[in-house]
Amino acid sequence: MKGAVLYGPKDIRFEDCDDPKIIEPTDAVLRLAATCVCGSDLWPYRGLQPIDGPTHMGHEYCGIVEEVGSAVKSIKPGQFVVGSFATSDNTCPHCQYGYQSACIHREFMLRAQAPFLRVPNADGTLVPTPGGTPSPSLVPSLLAASDVLGTGWFAADAANVKPGGTVVVVGDGAVGLLGVLSAKQMGAGRIIAMSRHESRQKLAREFGATDIVMERGDEGIARIKELTKGIGADSVLECVGTQESMMQAIHATRPGGYVSYVGIPHGVVLDGQKLFFTHVHLHGGPAPVRRFLPKLIDLILDGTIDPGKVFDLTLPLDRVAEGYRAMDERRAIKTLLQV
Amino acid sequence: MKGAVLYGPKDIRFEDCDDPKIIEPTDAVLRLAATCVCGSDLWPYRGLQPIDGPTHMGHEYCGIVEEVGSAVKSIKPGQFVVGSFATSDNTCPHCQYGYQSACIHREFMLRAQAPFLRVPNADGTLVPTPGGTPSPSLVPSLLAASDVLGTGWFAADAANVKPGGTVVVVGDGAVGLLGVLSAKQMGAGRIIAMSRHESRQKLAREFGATDIVMERGDEGIARIKELTKGIGADSVLECVGTQESMMQAIHATRPGGYVSYVGIPHGVVLDGQKLFFTHVHLHGGPAPVRRFLPKLIDLILDGTIDPGKVFDLTLPLDRVAEGYRAMDERRAIKTLLQV
Repeated sequence: MKGAVLYGPKDIRFEDCDDPKIIEPTDAVLRLAATCVCGSDLWPYRGLQPIDGPTHMGHEYCGIVEEVGSAVKSIKPGQFVVGSFATSDNTCPHCQYGYQSACIHREFMLRAQAPFLRVPNADGTLVPTPGGTPSPSLVPSLLAASDVLGTGWFAADAANVKPGGTVVVVGDGAVGLLGVLSAKQMGAGRIIAMSRHESRQKLAREFGATDIVMERGDEGIARIKELTKGIGADSVLECVGTQESMMQAIHATRPGGYVSYVGIPHGVVLDGQKLFFTHVHLHGGPAPVRRFLPKLIDLILDGTIDPGKVFDLTLPLDRVAEGYRAMDERRAIKTLLQV
Repeated sequence: MKGAVLYGPKDIRFEDCDDPKIIEPTDAVLRLAATCVCGSDLWPYRGLQPIDGPTHMGHEYCGIVEEVGSAVKSIKPGQFVVGSFATSDNTCPHCQYGYQSACIHREFMLRAQAPFLRVPNADGTLVPTPGGTPSPSLVPSLLAASDVLGTGWFAADAANVKPGGTVVVVGDGAVGLLGVLSAKQMGAGRIIAMSRHESRQKLAREFGATDIVMERGDEGIARIKELTKGIGADSVLECVGTQESMMQAIHATRPGGYVSYVGIPHGVVLDGQKLFFTHVHLHGGPAPVRRFLPKLIDLILDGTIDPGKVFDLTLPLDRVAEGYRAMDERRAIKTLLQV
């Protein structure tokens, strides 16, 4: 088969790779229905995160089970499944606490920008869609559940979004936009999206944003304070991962409010004493998507949510390089790759 | 009157000061029943926190109301009251959310190491003891409620201590010891106190510690992991405020667990990416003691808790300098000053 391999900054190639096989008896191999490019893929693509030689890319996936290892019990060939970017046994203590992305057997997925994919710990990682193979029209949303929706949902959950609460979302990438959708589902009363891009503002409003703030940094913080009568927001979702976005999130939050951060921080440093006096709650990390997958799949299948709207560019897999380029240049929010 | 004034490192003087007066109509003036020296007083005492000229000291207090301003409604002369180190109107949005130590009218108390004390925003700050003036034997515990107990209680609350949970307390100062007491009251199943000092270990056990860990740093973390079957603790109370203690707390916590930090951080820097991958919840700040005061006063008056045990040295106020010295040299856990 052929898959996407990153050779260096802005150098993604679609080239021959080994077909995935069952290695451990707990593995499954999937034939993907679709895959996509993640905002986090852009860090190494831009040369902002070092790579150690040519690197297979992709960690978002859904599709049909082709084959399972001898120890796989609940997952069967022919099932349509969605999995997380982090594998999990779903039985260890961390998994039982709902932190499957800290599973003692966690592996971060790679190589999903390809037609076939090996998934370790299949029973604990994969969730079959109830009612068999879903309609192709639902594939983009189910694919989104694999990471970007699950991460946006975790952002809202970790920021303690409650019915009637005031929520700010920092970042208008796909995760931020789906943080808006998640906050709406959790009953937030007011959802302020921080965005400067018209198409993203539009989608944010469609997903439930009640206000748009275009200012950033100190001006952005001042604007949030103004909109919240000087108090600050109850819940702030930091969906970028830079020092500026983190500071914007922390200082837009009221004392006793909640900041979540779900994008891998790059160069972020927190001054303990300053953080202390803000009085915020802080929680984040790689999203435990597996915790939320059954619920998210149900919400998608019954038509309550349509997170697949974040895919505003669809390309065949062999044009993966163009998919990266469009996201890098912010011409696309998120690229879906047809297998 | 005479009060304690810090002139520079290790230079505390007991000298003439102006008698406090009503300045704002919302003020009260108290005749203190007792006051004390705080662990946080040691930062400037040791020269580790700059002072801007001679500085009046003390922020823990309880006593009898001598006089109130014309706008004070609920607090009356003759009442015995306890207040927090941070004043609050108890009506602003931050107060209503339970973060009175972030009140929009907050002032940090000073000058409490003296016989008389002006307290701004008396109605919102002071809590009278039900049933009139308490027995003198209860004064140490009521004084502890003013800061060190309220802060230990907040540490346990902010670390989400739950019935049956595994709790670690980093720091064996008075706040850490009362964090142990608080965790016990909240039903923790296991309370691991990190302490190297025999007298403090003894008090920790008396307050409810089930295990003592003497190791620090990486060895301390390894020991906690060993005691928790490799998982880490559910709740960790960081009651020191140094880089080492903060790292010890964060890395002793399980993914998805809770770290509270209640001592003003000095030189603490957090790496955003490393924090991200620990998956912990982090919450702290100046303790909103006012939120907890009514409950803490009740627990003291009905004999459920005896936090006054942290005072292992009692001196007359004019020997305040010796009180600081004993704490600085760790000969005393906490010094009560008789007025």
